[in-house]
Amino acid sequence: MNQPEFDQAFARDFETLLAWRRDVRHFRPDPVAAELVEHLLDLTTLAPSVGNAQPWRFVSVDDPARRAAIIANFEAANAAALSNYEGEKAQLYAQLKLAGLRQAPRHFAVFCDEATDQGAGLGRMTMPETLRYSAVLAIHTLWLAARVQGLGLGWVSIIDPAAATASLDVPSGWRFVAYLCLGYPEADHLEPELQRRGWQAREARCREVLQR
Amino acid sequence: MNQPEFDQAFARDFETLLAWRRDVRHFRPDPVAAELVEHLLDLTTLAPSVGNAQPWRFVSVDDPARRAAIIANFEAANAAALSNYEGEKAQLYAQLKLAGLRQAPRHFAVFCDEATDQGAGLGRMTMPETLRYSAVLAIHTLWLAARVQGLGLGWVSIIDPAAATASLDVPSGWRFVAYLCLGYPEADHLEPELQRRGWQAREARCREVLQR
Repeated sequence: MNQPEFDQAFARDFETLLAWRRDVRHFRPDPVAAELVEHLLDLTTLAPSVGNAQPWRFVSVDDPARRAAIIANFEAANAAALSNYEGEKAQLYAQLKLAGLRQAPRHFAVFCDEATDQGAGLGRMTMPETLRYSAVLAIHTLWLAARVQGLGLGWVSIIDPAAATASLDVPSGWRFVAYLCLGYPEADHLEPELQRRGWQAREARCREVLQR
Repeated sequence: MNQPEFDQAFARDFETLLAWRRDVRHFRPDPVAAELVEHLLDLTTLAPSVGNAQPWRFVSVDDPARRAAIIANFEAANAAALSNYEGEKAQLYAQLKLAGLRQAPRHFAVFCDEATDQGAGLGRMTMPETLRYSAVLAIHTLWLAARVQGLGLGWVSIIDPAAATASLDVPSGWRFVAYLCLGYPEADHLEPELQRRGWQAREARCREVLQR
């Protein structure tokens, strides 16, 4: 198979994809076709991983009782987080509807299988966290692939990972990495919600490159 | 600005990009145009981040003495790793030229600014590691964007992070996340090098989805 070359039109559209990918919090209730979700999950297997260990483990959370446990987990963590902000900032924070947990038709918990023998430990002796980082790379792959199909993904990080792990009854050795909401977005925005709502604008520091 | 829609041709090419992205270890010595590198670094700022904190910090490593320190760091970590493998596996491991450190025209260390006040701590109270995960998302953005332009990226994880941090004299509060090699690949392969060399094939476990 010959190596592919990507033309300028593709490069331009790819950059549009990066610019329009959003952390989606507001979803339409419309279901997502099961075959489409399966296809997106197939694509996650193409993500990079340390030693080719492929340690990501996706859990589809559909049981109402388990979803309720996750929502309760989020609400408790959110209340604790809120107590750390005062005045206007707290108001803003409270108004930000940070989780599409109630609206999103699909929920996925993502774990890292820390007990996996895949990859034989290659490349992660000095930096074992690279195994978790590999799961993060699979999440980003899903995120972009979903957006290509008009779907939105939201990453809920305001959650107690130990309680979430217990709620989901996963194999021992799996470490909680992320909780994701997936569905069709209510609206598309070029600007991130936290930016539109005055929380955090893009800053120049993330673009400074030290020369060493 | 209207929301973009991505057509089937783009979706197909995007999947080709995911399939052909490789962890590149063998580079041609050809330089990479500075403007192209700047453009790729611009694109990293579009990566998702927790609370929009944008905590990734790229360090361009060009000084020969600093590069030599990183290579010595890699060699020490590699020797230590090698002592953990026996027989055939060790031979294979030794043969794998795991770092393109000597060939790649551009080197980048990636840090996470753990002291940043950007994002005001939003969303990372229960899972502070999501700040590092945000830096990983920026790396994956760079990885894919580089491949669109025919460039290869290699992630060197066999490295002592504390020693690397010390070698590069970065601001305090920056945590070492990754060391990257960037350049034009010697050859393109659809199959990962670790797979071609019999180390680790793709496995079904990374595609199993638990139902909960």
